[in-house]
Amino acid sequence: MKYYFAKTFASDFKTVIQQTKESLSAEGFGVLTEIDIRDKLKEKLDVDFRKYIILGACNPAYAYKALQEEDKIGTMLPCNVIVQEISNNQIEVAAIDPIASMMAIQNPNLHHIATEIQNKLKTVINNISL
Amino acid sequence: MKYYFAKTFASDFKTVIQQTKESLSAEGFGVLTEIDIRDKLKEKLDVDFRKYIILGACNPAYAYKALQEEDKIGTMLPCNVIVQEISNNQIEVAAIDPIASMMAIQNPNLHHIATEIQNKLKTVINNISL
Repeated sequence: MKYYFAKTFASDFKTVIQQTKESLSAEGFGVLTEIDIRDKLKEKLDVDFRKYIILGACNPAYAYKALQEEDKIGTMLPCNVIVQEISNNQIEVAAIDPIASMMAIQNPNLHHIATEIQNKLKTVINNISL
Repeated sequence: MKYYFAKTFASDFKTVIQQTKESLSAEGFGVLTEIDIRDKLKEKLDVDFRKYIILGACNPAYAYKALQEEDKIGTMLPCNVIVQEISNNQIEVAAIDPIASMMAIQNPNLHHIATEIQNKLKTVINNISL
């Protein structure tokens, strides 16, 4: 089962991050966390890795609904969107598919919320304007 | 399927967070992100929620291995550990079970890494000293 929605853009890394954030914002997602994997791996392990950012995206209204349905759903929040440099001027954006990551959870109400978030994240990826 | 490992402590919220971080550190996890859900929900939706923190925990060596096996595994990193106030002086800590969250991913090598991380996170929860 595929666990993400992805799209590749011929652009530079910073521009794609910026446009991804704008597309997230248009669907009601704020970016709560930002992890620079390349920097972290250099700092902690002294290895060289490609440009790779994890954005922790959260739509507060949906997060609130999900927390009311499943008190430990915070173990799977926020929804991550990654931006990585595949090769020079080829940048891939991938958003988690919450239906895939939450498939172990047997809760029909949560499943309904996850389906709505899934649709929003698909729209985010499709609407990145580059 | 249960998607987390949890334990409840008779202590105060801040002490439990501190001891959780120490237990994570002992297993090689740094805390890369910290989201205060109560604050966020108040700020964004003006609702009152119980004390609830999401710690984004990362063991760099395992994260590096996982990224080499699955280039989009960043959609599921870091591993979250949540701390929430169930009632006065009753604080629950829950860590994600990476085998549950990653069950949609058909990759035996990743599964092996997830099993090791699962064991480490169980140890983290069991070793919180309060």
